[in-house]
Amino acid sequence: MDSITVFAPATVANVACGFDIFGFAVDNPGDQITLTLRDEPGVRITDIIGDEGRLPREASRNTAGIAIQTYLKHINRTDVGLDVVLHKQMPLGSGLGSSAASAVAGVYAVNELLGRPLPTIKLLPFAMEGERIACGSAHADNVGPSLLGGFVVVRSYHPLDVIRIDTPANLFCTLVHPDIEVNTKDARFILKNEVSLKNTITQMGNVAGLIAGLMTPDYDLISRSLVDVIIEPVRAILIPEFNEAKQAALENGALGCSISGSGPSMFALSRDAQTAEQVGAAMQHAFLSVGITSEAYVSKINREGPKVLSGEPVVQ
Amino acid sequence: MDSITVFAPATVANVACGFDIFGFAVDNPGDQITLTLRDEPGVRITDIIGDEGRLPREASRNTAGIAIQTYLKHINRTDVGLDVVLHKQMPLGSGLGSSAASAVAGVYAVNELLGRPLPTIKLLPFAMEGERIACGSAHADNVGPSLLGGFVVVRSYHPLDVIRIDTPANLFCTLVHPDIEVNTKDARFILKNEVSLKNTITQMGNVAGLIAGLMTPDYDLISRSLVDVIIEPVRAILIPEFNEAKQAALENGALGCSISGSGPSMFALSRDAQTAEQVGAAMQHAFLSVGITSEAYVSKINREGPKVLSGEPVVQ
Repeated sequence: MDSITVFAPATVANVACGFDIFGFAVDNPGDQITLTLRDEPGVRITDIIGDEGRLPREASRNTAGIAIQTYLKHINRTDVGLDVVLHKQMPLGSGLGSSAASAVAGVYAVNELLGRPLPTIKLLPFAMEGERIACGSAHADNVGPSLLGGFVVVRSYHPLDVIRIDTPANLFCTLVHPDIEVNTKDARFILKNEVSLKNTITQMGNVAGLIAGLMTPDYDLISRSLVDVIIEPVRAILIPEFNEAKQAALENGALGCSISGSGPSMFALSRDAQTAEQVGAAMQHAFLSVGITSEAYVSKINREGPKVLSGEPVVQ
Repeated sequence: MDSITVFAPATVANVACGFDIFGFAVDNPGDQITLTLRDEPGVRITDIIGDEGRLPREASRNTAGIAIQTYLKHINRTDVGLDVVLHKQMPLGSGLGSSAASAVAGVYAVNELLGRPLPTIKLLPFAMEGERIACGSAHADNVGPSLLGGFVVVRSYHPLDVIRIDTPANLFCTLVHPDIEVNTKDARFILKNEVSLKNTITQMGNVAGLIAGLMTPDYDLISRSLVDVIIEPVRAILIPEFNEAKQAALENGALGCSISGSGPSMFALSRDAQTAEQVGAAMQHAFLSVGITSEAYVSKINREGPKVLSGEPVVQ
C-alpha cells in the first residue's frame, strides 16, 4: 500500500487544576488524515475538508504539514513525496486541541507509512512543531495526550518530560462547544503573572489529588480535585453562561466540569455514558437559554492515541 | 493492663515541591509516650525525658496533653484519669515534626488504652489541636503522616481532606539535623505572598510527577520531581552550607534532597539503605567542614504510623 489514513483524538488541556501541565484525549471528536506516497519529493496538501477554507494549504504553514516536514528532515527522508488530505472533524479554535490532533495524525501517519522508524514517544517534538506554527508556542499539553492517549502530565519542557497516567476504564468525557469565539491570545493575556501563595498551595493539593484519584482509581477524589482556583475564575468571564453550564453539569451528576484548554469549549467527566449524555444535554440547554447553540460530544477517555483506519505500513 | 507505651514517627513535611501539602513518616526517629490510668480524673504530665526542660509540663499547654484532653472531651470521657510520661527522642524545633509525633503518640495511645472507640483516621483533628498549641496553627502535614504512616497529601483543610499515598517498599530516608536554630516563624515570615505563574506551573508539574512516581513506582520520576522552585530558594539561606550539603547528597546517589519542614533539618531519599547511609555521612561532612555538628538518622519510609510498644488495650 502507498496510502494510509489515521485518526488522532481531540484533547482537553489544563483539566481544571492542571494549567499548562495536564491534558487528556477523548475518543470523539478527532481529525483524520490520509497520506499518499508519490514520486516527486516534498509534502503537498491536496485537500482540507471541514475547515471552511480557514486553514493554510501551504504545507510549511499548516500544522500537519510542518509536523510531517520536520519529521522527514529529522530521519533524513526529504526524498519522500506525500500528498496530504486532512479531514477536520471538529471546530477550529475551540479549545479541543484541533491543531494538535492534525499535527499528531500527520506525524503518526507518516511514521507508520514508512514502517515505523521511530517509536511513538519520539514523535512528540515533531507534533509540537505543528503547535508552534498554530499557536506561537510549542506546547505539549494537547499533542502529548493526542499522541500517547490517556491522561498526560507535562512535568517539564527543559528537558521535555511527558508522563502518561493510567485512567480508570470507566471515565467518560462530555465536551460542549458553544458557538462563540474566544481568541486564545486574549485567553492568555487576561491571566495574571502572579498567583497568591495560598492559591498556589490549594491548586497543588488538587493537582496531587487528581493524579492520586486517577491512579488509585478513586472517583470521589477525582471529583473533589477537579477544582481550579487560579485560571478558571479569570477565563470563565470570556464564556457567557459558564457558571450556569457548569452548575447544570454538576447537578446532573458530573464528577467535575471546567474549561477545555483556553475555551470556549467546556468539558465534564462522568462515571458512566448515560450520565455523560445527560450532562451534555443539560449544558447545551444552559447555553441555549441565552440563545447560544452548541455541539456536544460524549465519549470515553481515549487510552490508545492515534489509530490507523486504513492502509498498511510500507517497510522501506 | 492499665498502662500503654506507644511510638509515633517523626515526619518530613513539604517534601521539596509540596509546600504545606506533602508529608511522610520515617521509622527513625520518633517519640514515645506512656499513659497510665489512675483514679483521679484529668490528664497529668508526670515526666518528660529528653527535652532538657524546654517543654511545658502543664497538660493544657503541652502538645500531647492538649491532644489527649481534646480527644477525651470529644468522646465524653473526661472522667478518665491519666498519668503521662513523654520520652522525646528527637531534637525540638528541628523540622522533624517533633510536636506532631508527641501529639500523635498521645492521642493514639489513649484511643488504644480505651479499647479503640474511634478509628485511626478520626484521631487526626485531636492531633491537629496539639499542633495548634505548638505552632499556632492546626496544620496537618506532620500529624497526618505521623498518624497514618506513609506519604500523605493534605488536599484541603475546609473540609479536611487527607489522602494517604502508597510508597515503594524500598525507599529510604536520610535526615540530617545540623546543630543550629531556625525559628519556624522566621522561616514562614521570609516567604513571599505571591508566586509567579511560571513557578506555580513548574511546581505543579513536580507535584504531579512526585505522586505519579511514588504510586507507579518510578524512582527516576521521583528523583526528577523532587525539585522546589518556590520555597527552598528562599529558606535555604537560613541554613548555612545548605547548597553544599544538598550537593553532597546528590553526588552520593540520593534521589533528591531538600529542607525537612521549615528546617534546619534536611532530608534525602535513596533507593537503598547503603546509599542512604553514605548520603548521611556526606551531608554531615559538609556541615562539619564549617564547624557545624549534626545528627543523622537513616531509616525506611514508615508505612504503619504509630506502634504499640507495650501494654494491652482496656475494653471499657
